Amino acid sequence: MIGADNQQERLDLGWIVGFVDGEGCFYVGINKDPRRNNRWNVLPEFRVVQHKSDEQILHRIRNFFGFGNITVNHGDRKEWRVRGLQDLNKLVKFFSRNSLKTKKQKSFLIFKEIVEMMNKKQHLTKIGLRKIAFLTSKMNRRVKPRYLKSSETLRPTSKR
Amino acid sequence: MIGADNQQERLDLGWIVGFVDGEGCFYVGINKDPRRNNRWNVLPEFRVVQHKSDEQILHRIRNFFGFGNITVNHGDRKEWRVRGLQDLNKLVKFFSRNSLKTKKQKSFLIFKEIVEMMNKKQHLTKIGLRKIAFLTSKMNRRVKPRYLKSSETLRPTSKR
Repeated sequence: MIGADNQQERLDLGWIVGFVDGEGCFYVGINKDPRRNNRWNVLPEFRVVQHKSDEQILHRIRNFFGFGNITVNHGDRKEWRVRGLQDLNKLVKFFSRNSLKTKKQKSFLIFKEIVEMMNKKQHLTKIGLRKIAFLTSKMNRRVKPRYLKSSETLRPTSKR
Repeated sequence: MIGADNQQERLDLGWIVGFVDGEGCFYVGINKDPRRNNRWNVLPEFRVVQHKSDEQILHRIRNFFGFGNITVNHGDRKEWRVRGLQDLNKLVKFFSRNSLKTKKQKSFLIFKEIVEMMNKKQHLTKIGLRKIAFLTSKMNRRVKPRYLKSSETLRPTSKR
């Protein structure tokens, strides 16, 4: 029922912010480097997930921004995913100018702080990595990152 | 992290459409009238559900439209809910002028058709009610409405 013309039309800025307030997800993974087991990788990413029957909207969002990839999320779901500092910096710039209106704004501000730390390569230091791990624990559903649960990174509470 | 000033600011039209594309739900219930067991009531409603920690956004949406109620959805969730033909007609007018961009548009168009039938009191006739029941079965997750599963409304397939 949505005509071809309508599908070509560029999404407007307000719509993007509203849709991301509903469906967007800022996420920062901290994973062991599979090549070097004693190193941790920081992987920030942003995604918008939709059922595959609405894949068209992910392509329209991708076209709006001009970066990111459409890929399978899980089962019947697809996602528009943004990774890599270059594109993430453009994304951060966009949402700095166009504020989210739900509590997702809080996650975005933490995400932004982490991306800015990574721009300065602070994630490559032990202190920086530790700070990033604590910051991620305050995002979204406050899941404790694996890095903070790892025995090798645990420290006495008094030193935290 | 969202300032008080920001919370007062009126939501913009594009944001509303984007957020509803993500979080809105058009629903039409067809239930037995508890007072008269042989009659069916048609109850169209629109809702936007959020975790209670983001209840502020529901109030802002309510203020934008000027109608609807904030109420408990389930457990920790709250909803902005619009019921009643008077307010639903205003809502339908809004989304007729400002098209949704996901497949939710399809559900909206069916919802609109049902509201317009109810404006003409067609839901009070057996033929109208039957048509509404079939229309609702094409909305959202295509759950078969109770009306169509009821033995008293079942008819031979050939007559459908």
